[in-house]
This record gives sequence, structure tokens and C-alpha cells, in this order.
Amino acid sequence: MDWIYALDIIGTLVFAISGVLTALDNKLDLVGAAIIGLVTAVGGGTLRDVLIGETPVGWMKDPNYLWTILLALILSYFFKKYILKLRRSLFLFDTIGIGLFTILGLQKTLSVGLSPAIAVLMGMVSAVFGGVIRDVLTNIVPLIFRREIYASACLAGGVVFLGLEAINNQQTVNMLLSMSTVVVIRYLAVRYHWSLNFSLESKKD
Amino acid sequence: MDWIYALDIIGTLVFAISGVLTALDNKLDLVGAAIIGLVTAVGGGTLRDVLIGETPVGWMKDPNYLWTILLALILSYFFKKYILKLRRSLFLFDTIGIGLFTILGLQKTLSVGLSPAIAVLMGMVSAVFGGVIRDVLTNIVPLIFRREIYASACLAGGVVFLGLEAINNQQTVNMLLSMSTVVVIRYLAVRYHWSLNFSLESKKD
Amino acid sequence: MDWIYALDIIGTLVFAISGVLTALDNKLDLVGAAIIGLVTAVGGGTLRDVLIGETPVGWMKDPNYLWTILLALILSYFFKKYILKLRRSLFLFDTIGIGLFTILGLQKTLSVGLSPAIAVLMGMVSAVFGGVIRDVLTNIVPLIFRREIYASACLAGGVVFLGLEAINNQQTVNMLLSMSTVVVIRYLAVRYHWSLNFSLESKKD
Repeated sequence: MDWIYALDIIGTLVFAISGVLTALDNKLDLVGAAIIGLVTAVGGGTLRDVLIGETPVGWMKDPNYLWTILLALILSYFFKKYILKLRRSLFLFDTIGIGLFTILGLQKTLSVGLSPAIAVLMGMVSAVFGGVIRDVLTNIVPLIFRREIYASACLAGGVVFLGLEAINNQQTVNMLLSMSTVVVIRYLAVRYHWSLNFSLESKKD
Repeated sequence: MDWIYALDIIGTLVFAISGVLTALDNKLDLVGAAIIGLVTAVGGGTLRDVLIGETPVGWMKDPNYLWTILLALILSYFFKKYILKLRRSLFLFDTIGIGLFTILGLQKTLSVGLSPAIAVLMGMVSAVFGGVIRDVLTNIVPLIFRREIYASACLAGGVVFLGLEAINNQQTVNMLLSMSTVVVIRYLAVRYHWSLNFSLESKKD
Repeated sequence: MDWIYALDIIGTLVFAISGVLTALDNKLDLVGAAIIGLVTAVGGGTLRDVLIGETPVGWMKDPNYLWTILLALILSYFFKKYILKLRRSLFLFDTIGIGLFTILGLQKTLSVGLSPAIAVLMGMVSAVFGGVIRDVLTNIVPLIFRREIYASACLAGGVVFLGLEAINNQQTVNMLLSMSTVVVIRYLAVRYHWSLNFSLESKKD
């Protein structure tokens, strides 16, 4: 489905931009920033693919992911100020990306024959662990402390998707509804912890 | 063999409780604590399975592991004080778990046709690396500093098992003897470094 | 080809020595140091193999890698002072190892049918991520900060190799030329950041 692929690429771009900006803030050089951008964008899906035995991991088989990450590097380096002004839009696409990666990860896990509970878990891993690996590599205090609400949002979205799938077969509608679940929970979480709203880094997955 | 499966589940429960308690001590929220509990309990076996190419990793194919970890989360959250009083029993089952995971990891590695030396190494990885990954994720000073004695105990237990297997075919007896090796070495290590005995966290694998 | 295997083993030995020395500097005990030496030496290739789906990972199928790492542990422990005097030679073999691991990793990635861009990336991962994992495990400030030039050197060497392969079929010559590219870039980088030259640790991959 084309809109899914488009959102996937946009989500990858926004995740990668977030990773590159974090890396540049941490004084990493360009190649280091590119690596952190790559890890942030595809780390979660990579971990999922490795755990469920779907290797070579997905992004390696489609060159568009690598070009997207390269684009993120270029945009972050040359247009950093402009990008920071777009925070609001970035945050929107970042959250949509989290919702999408959750459901795509869940579906991929089901497709290899694993159970729904594992699929919900792997959906969350797909969406959240790119950021976890980024944090581990940059050795900053584990964002998993503040990020747990995103993990919860992803788990909730996965459960909603499975629930909807059980009662109808409108997959597109179910994806949109469960992705919206993730987006709304995350939005409410950020609104509630209002201070999170003022820094791009802490808003990142 | 039923007693092996029972010990495996109990070991998983105790490892997960230890991970959840560490996470709660580090002020992680419930979902964060659940993730750290999961990683502590199944991280070592997961790494082994990924390295030897046995994917999807084992715990994903048996729902009992996930329920065990959920149980650990509930017990740790609601009965923390009671659990801390059970330290002595927890420590016993934790050590038995380490011994069992070592031998099960070794056997699984042999079963895919890898060499005895690699099997001993993967036995140790199965037992110890859940704790290592937990430490990396919570970004605390690497417990591998104080834990090396557990790694040594696991390596010794693995070698003892292979030695016994070479001279008889009483697998159950050999498992019990080699697991006892791990337990005794670890017990002596903790007794010798007496101070380790007073905190649950430092007693954990 | 025998000279490749010989260089591979020597590179593994030097990487492992560097890991063991870092671990001993960080007050890890012998088993901890052995683990860090192993991770430093084979961690990059392990990550590559896991990502491209070539499991069990390569070093597990050839006992010589494990013996080489054991040798590194023994040499580092008993002959530390003598080894530190050999810094210059170690640095040379370390850099040759980086060059070789880059090209071998690239070739292995191509051999499973992945694209040249991914192969260049996996070449870099093979050469550099052993050190990254070592840093994550020892929880020191991420060397990826200072190491990015090595990552760049590896990427450049990979591109040079692919370029040469496109215009001739002298694989041995192409390997030597692209490895030399890595060595020269790294040498110039170290010379330029002159201070890096005085500590073994910061010279490591």
C-alpha cells in the first residue's frame, strides 16, 4: 500500500533527523552523526528482525532507507536552524512514525507465525528501541526513564489493532485507528508533562 | 524433562524479579521496569540464540516466559517488601538459575553442531549476559567488574559438564553435578566477598 | 588465500590485545578482560553476520579465533610492559586489521546478495563496531567521538575497493590498494591529531 510506504519513509526521515541532531548536540562528527541517525531510524526494526529471524534485516534490502538517512544527515547539517523551527511538524510526523512502526512491526511478527502477545511486544520494540540503542551508544542517561509512556502508547496501539482485527477485516481502518491510539496517548502524555514539549530531544521517541 | 522446565521458569521468574527491582530502584516506571525485567530474564538466552542462528529466539515461542515476566512485575511492584525479606531464597534460586541456564545454553549450542569450546562460552553468555544487557540499558557502572566470578563459575560448570559427559552418559546426574559446581563456586565467591551479601542488586547475576 | 587468513588472525590478535589492555586498565578481572578482548576482536564481524543473516557467526565455526583471543589474554597479562613497548608495531597491525576487516566484511556482505552501498556500510561495521561494543560494555565515554575518522577511513576504503573492482578483476591488487587507503587515511588522521599518538587506548580502532 503506497500511503504506508510513504509514511514509513517520512517516519524514517524524521527519526533519522532526530538522531543526527542528538549526535551533533553531543559533538559527534559527521560520520558519527550519520551512524547515530541510522541507528535511531532503523535500530528498532533491526532488533525486531534479528529477534524474529528475518535476516538480512529489512532496510538492507531497500536502498531507499539508506538514501533517506543520508538526506536526513544533509538536512540536519545544513538546515539545522530551519528544522528546529519545524519542531511542531517534526513532532507530528515522529509520532505518526511511532504509530506506524508499531503496527508494521506487529504485522511482520505475526507473519512469521509468532503469537499476538509477542507481536505487540515486537511492535513496541520496532518503534522505541531505535531510540534506546541511540541512547546507549551516546552514553547519555537512559531516555527509557522518560520514554516509558511511548512504550506504553505503542503497547496500547498494538492491543487496539489486534482487538479491531478480531472483530472486522478492515485492515486499513484498523491501522489508522490503532495508529491514532498511539498518537493520541503520546500527545496527551506530552501535554501532561508539559516541560517535555520544549526540547526536540526529549520529544523524540 | 519436567524438573528442568520447572527450574527454568523459576529461574526466569527470579531473574526477572531482580531486573524489575533494579529498574524500580533506578526510578524507571512500570513499563520501563517490565522491559528491564524481561531483558534480565531472557537477554542472555536471546543473545545466544541470535549468535548461533536459532531464531525466532526461544522465549518467543513459549508464552509461559512472557507470563512469568509479567508475574515478576506484579510481585515486585505489590510485594516488594515481602520479596526483600525472601532474599536468601531468591539468591538460592537465582544461583540455581545461573547453573541451569549455563548447562541448557551449552546443550543448545552443541545441538546446532558447534564446538565444545564455543558451547562452554555460550553457556556462560546465556547465564550472564541478561545482567550485562540490563546494566548497559540502565547505564550503571558495569557490573561485569564484580560479576566476573559468576562468569568464571559458569565457564567452570560448563567444562565440568563436558568432562562428565565424556566419561559417562548419565545426563541428569551430569547436569546436577555441573549445576552444583556453579552454585558452590558462586556461593564461595559471595561468602568470600562478604559485603556483596547485603544488597539484592549486587547478588544478582 | 593464505596471506588473508594470516592477516585476519594477526588482526584478531592485535584487536583482542587492545581490548584486554583496555579492560585491565579499567580494573576488570581476567575473565572480564577476556570477554572484552573477545568482543573487541570479533564484535564487529559478529554484528555484521547477525545483520546479514549469516549465523552461526563466523568466528564460532573456526576454533583458531578463540585460541587467538586466549593467546591475547595471556600475552597481555604476562607481557604487558613488553607489549606497550611494541606500540608502534601494534598500531601498524591494528590499522592493517581495520583495513582487512573492512574489505572482508564488504565481500561477505556482497556474497549474500546485498547491495554495494550496504556492503560498504557493513565493511565499516565489521572493522569499527567491535570497539564500539567494547566501549558500551565498559561504559566509558563513547570513543565513537574520536573514532569517526576510522569509520570514514573504512567507508573510503570500501568505496575504493568497489571502484577498483568495477574497472579490473585483480582482486588481490584491489584488496591491497583499498586496505592501503584505510591505513593511509588513518595514519594521516593520527598524525594530524598528534596527541592521539601517545596512548595505546586512543589509538585502538
